[in-house]
Amino acid sequence: MTQISELSTPCALIDMQRMQRNIARMQERMNSLGVSFRPHVKTSKCVPVAQAQKASGARGITVSTLKEAEQFFEAGFTDILYAVGIVSSKLPQALALRQRGCNLKIITDNITVAREIGHFAAAHKTTFEVWIEIDTDGHRSGIKPEEPALLDVAQALREGGLEVGGVLTHAGSSYDYDNHEALLAISEQERAGTVRAAERLRAAGFSCPVVSIGSTPTALSAAHLEGVTEVRAGVYVFFDLVMHNVGVCSSDDIALSVLTTIIGHQAEKGWAIVDAGWMAMSRDRGTQKQKNDFGFGLVCTEDGRTLGNYILSGANQEHGILSRTGEPDLEIAKHFPIGTRLRILPNHACATGAQHPEYHAVHPDGDTAIWPRFYGW
Amino acid sequence: MTQISELSTPCALIDMQRMQRNIARMQERMNSLGVSFRPHVKTSKCVPVAQAQKASGARGITVSTLKEAEQFFEAGFTDILYAVGIVSSKLPQALALRQRGCNLKIITDNITVAREIGHFAAAHKTTFEVWIEIDTDGHRSGIKPEEPALLDVAQALREGGLEVGGVLTHAGSSYDYDNHEALLAISEQERAGTVRAAERLRAAGFSCPVVSIGSTPTALSAAHLEGVTEVRAGVYVFFDLVMHNVGVCSSDDIALSVLTTIIGHQAEKGWAIVDAGWMAMSRDRGTQKQKNDFGFGLVCTEDGRTLGNYILSGANQEHGILSRTGEPDLEIAKHFPIGTRLRILPNHACATGAQHPEYHAVHPDGDTAIWPRFYGW
Repeated sequence: MTQISELSTPCALIDMQRMQRNIARMQERMNSLGVSFRPHVKTSKCVPVAQAQKASGARGITVSTLKEAEQFFEAGFTDILYAVGIVSSKLPQALALRQRGCNLKIITDNITVAREIGHFAAAHKTTFEVWIEIDTDGHRSGIKPEEPALLDVAQALREGGLEVGGVLTHAGSSYDYDNHEALLAISEQERAGTVRAAERLRAAGFSCPVVSIGSTPTALSAAHLEGVTEVRAGVYVFFDLVMHNVGVCSSDDIALSVLTTIIGHQAEKGWAIVDAGWMAMSRDRGTQKQKNDFGFGLVCTEDGRTLGNYILSGANQEHGILSRTGEPDLEIAKHFPIGTRLRILPNHACATGAQHPEYHAVHPDGDTAIWPRFYGW
Repeated sequence: MTQISELSTPCALIDMQRMQRNIARMQERMNSLGVSFRPHVKTSKCVPVAQAQKASGARGITVSTLKEAEQFFEAGFTDILYAVGIVSSKLPQALALRQRGCNLKIITDNITVAREIGHFAAAHKTTFEVWIEIDTDGHRSGIKPEEPALLDVAQALREGGLEVGGVLTHAGSSYDYDNHEALLAISEQERAGTVRAAERLRAAGFSCPVVSIGSTPTALSAAHLEGVTEVRAGVYVFFDLVMHNVGVCSSDDIALSVLTTIIGHQAEKGWAIVDAGWMAMSRDRGTQKQKNDFGFGLVCTEDGRTLGNYILSGANQEHGILSRTGEPDLEIAKHFPIGTRLRILPNHACATGAQHPEYHAVHPDGDTAIWPRFYGW
């Protein structure tokens, strides 16, 4: 086995203990709320991570691309929700998955696509399970719970010989809050709006068996989930500094980090230069408008202890600038000599993971294993 | 051959005509300034792109990772500058490349690493060509031209049995300007500082044959390059919206774009939803603080004509929000119906390219060819 100290930098580490703790925390919460849990695997794009989620009790997975659906189906996952509105040009790829035995569900929020799915299904003498996307917070796609279009889309599906498999929403605006009261309110808004959409469909004669909601902040904040059948969340598996600022994890819960090495200093400015730039961290500056701006990441020791007030304050493609917040550390070259290895916690685990062809899963004894991940479409 | 209309979205396109024009423009400028040109291949990480640069007259390449050095060496490139400060832990990988016949040059800006290279070379009965990194604008790494440390590092290299192969700088702060006078000034500062460093080394008895400078804005702005032997630049090969705002290209020069499809609307907000989110565009918001903020990208037709005032104003992982700048387009669903295909010009070509496993090189007749690219370290 390879020890952390033998890894080339930069590279992405997963702290196994933290990841398992994050998985157990979410699954136990879902169990106690009485709902199924369908993790979003776009965060990791990594089969062993999804297998750990499944082993803990997850039922099915959520994906953001058809490539994810294909990769996870090949790895043995069959119950897959493609949670981005489909278009006609992607139906042949979706059909191919279903014909191979994948229980793929697709979504839409508009009548044009609903009709196109029906025409395509009829032309190919097949059917699709279609969920309708609901907009409960105005942040992106979906039909508002009270909009007439909701029933029009359901009717268009029925006329195409398709049934409404469910409704789903994602309260992505929950990322904008940082206190429990606000998170409680957005969670309830997400739940109530989606349940209301399902009730309208059922009152109009559509079965709508599934009511699917979720985001990491709302999943961890909701007081109850009456009427909801399943929850989806992704980033909770690793957590990150954005979630830390939202208030749903501590920095000690963050399971993903980037291992880096000090390659130089600009001592009079209080800078150390590291070999993790934005290519390793991603260009995500998600903490920029939050209460704590961590630059491109928060600096920890090689074994994962937070150092408090050192951040990656700047990043070029393969260079990071490490500095102290507030007063510059004019003795930075003494504190972080050339060759020092550090871990940097990321702003956004989904974006940082995407920069790396593989994770190094770190066991408590310091041994590491390579967990491949994929990218592209 | 595959036509653009047959490609799945999202995907990355290279407009071949524009790329060839950008390559010719830079090479002709370097020829007329009387310097060698060593393109930075971190922008494309794509062998056919670098081959086109070489065919136009480039001598050698610049890389930002040792993986790039390995990949391009395997593709037949031998004169390679690794332009990120090396550390001891990477010397075995650098040595392996040199032992295979790669003329790899490495760089440092500090005495600790200079000594370590000497010790490593002696222990392995070999030598390295080492260039000293100069800081001409305070934006990142390097020794200032007048600093005593410059001669100390050269002396440490000599004591380790190594000679100073050259000096290099990168005036990355040139990205912060947007008018020719300012670019002319930073170009001259970059040139003069690096030449001065070389003169100090030569006066102290070090040969320092190479004086290497460069960034896309300074390379395209310098009035003369007296004393310089070679120039490096990367992003010019594709250009991007940041370079458009800096003023060194027009939007019609931008060779890289992301092909996307309209998947929905929020018509009352003037939004169209596309299947290119930040995973396809990158999280780069480089135009945010420039004179024109293009959000996550500028919208063009499928065949590449700029539409003027439509941008990607928001992005989630696989969703982009397309809207008009200024007054919302309440008829956006008519202007961009479901299924419409568009190209989005990126803020930062290096960051956007990095999100894609391959480019689709688009020939003037609309035929496309797959050009693979790589990532990771």
